[in-house]
Amino acid sequence: MSAGRLYGVGIGPGDPELLTVKATRVIAAVPVVAFFAKAGRRGNARGIVDGWLKPSHLELPLYYPMTTESHFDDPPYRDALNDFYRKSAAAIAMHLEAGRDVALLAEGDPLLYGSFMHLFVRLRERFAVTIVPGVSSICGAWGAAAQAMTWGDDCLVVLPATLPLEELARRLAVADAAVIMKIGRNFARAREALAMAGMAERAIYVERATMDGEAVMPLEQKAEGPAPYFSLILVPGRGRRP
Amino acid sequence: MSAGRLYGVGIGPGDPELLTVKATRVIAAVPVVAFFAKAGRRGNARGIVDGWLKPSHLELPLYYPMTTESHFDDPPYRDALNDFYRKSAAAIAMHLEAGRDVALLAEGDPLLYGSFMHLFVRLRERFAVTIVPGVSSICGAWGAAAQAMTWGDDCLVVLPATLPLEELARRLAVADAAVIMKIGRNFARAREALAMAGMAERAIYVERATMDGEAVMPLEQKAEGPAPYFSLILVPGRGRRP
Repeated sequence: MSAGRLYGVGIGPGDPELLTVKATRVIAAVPVVAFFAKAGRRGNARGIVDGWLKPSHLELPLYYPMTTESHFDDPPYRDALNDFYRKSAAAIAMHLEAGRDVALLAEGDPLLYGSFMHLFVRLRERFAVTIVPGVSSICGAWGAAAQAMTWGDDCLVVLPATLPLEELARRLAVADAAVIMKIGRNFARAREALAMAGMAERAIYVERATMDGEAVMPLEQKAEGPAPYFSLILVPGRGRRP
Repeated sequence: MSAGRLYGVGIGPGDPELLTVKATRVIAAVPVVAFFAKAGRRGNARGIVDGWLKPSHLELPLYYPMTTESHFDDPPYRDALNDFYRKSAAAIAMHLEAGRDVALLAEGDPLLYGSFMHLFVRLRERFAVTIVPGVSSICGAWGAAAQAMTWGDDCLVVLPATLPLEELARRLAVADAAVIMKIGRNFARAREALAMAGMAERAIYVERATMDGEAVMPLEQKAEGPAPYFSLILVPGRGRRP
């Protein structure tokens, strides 16, 4: 008996219609569908693919060991995450070893941030892996905002707001267009960095792109305070155009 | 009679299965499908959606006025492009005014570089527009290379190789992960900039991702000389990971 294949399946930014045809075909063909979720929740990924699952699917939810993100430099948090990824990889490996193909769902695209990669690097030496690219959350966001992002020679910089203020500003300084991810509790710092870079006035805040409750507004109109998990900030480019 | 709606439809990096379900639904529903093509060719976009078109579709090819890209600062080239975009927008507007919805195809994602945006900005004040985000060519490329691109706090920089060497190097200096697009005749300069940034050794060259003739190799193994149109260079991030 040969081992199963792992599929890293990008499921897009939230709208179930933004799965690719390939993603729906792979999900329909595999016996096991694995996905990350917060403990006690069904999980956003599981919700997105709800219409694409069949009763015959074996579902493998992978529950994060903590409900709120802590600082990565905190050793107990880091150890707990490492343990979680190790156990999750083992749970998937069990199915692969038994010859069952597994689709591991990844919100957005599988290889742009996100938890999928932590299992991918733990499994790719032992098992065949196919990546099914997806519509990234950033493409979903600028699509919802209907903002032409990059033109001609524009340089696009994608930054997590978890970086220190000076690091954010230093990197925005070389950007023609920018996306700031992971704003959550770092929202005030992201806004300050954009002001330092002279980009705050043309920045756009996007929340829950392509999902229920989608909201798009100029950054200047966004109230102070933390932003929800599914939110980011866009700075469209202004490059050359005939 | 009300005017038609313009759909900017991302059709993904090349594999026809990497259209989203929404893209296939929109294409099936509209009477007019418009796409860019080189003069005398069917065009890559038209080829990608071949299996999704019906005989009843009215096809509107938009032929570029020149067969090779010239330098953007060349005034006759710039004027010819401007004229082309103006006439193309007018050809689409004629259908919209007659009440016919139009799907304008965009390879990859509609709002990340590409010709779609030049018509979008010319039509969006007069007509309703819906953006259908797509799998970008960069997600297709790192999926083909199976490279985990960005982790944790990694900063991703996307750069066109059309920039001068010093500009490329200055921007790569703040990148943890990078993508260099539009390498074509600028391949040697892109390689030199990566060497200046200390990134050449871990860079990966990808050609025709998700299409026939796909090739992935370490940049060091790529022969000198120009690269084809559908090629780019990836520098995967090495950020924090538990």
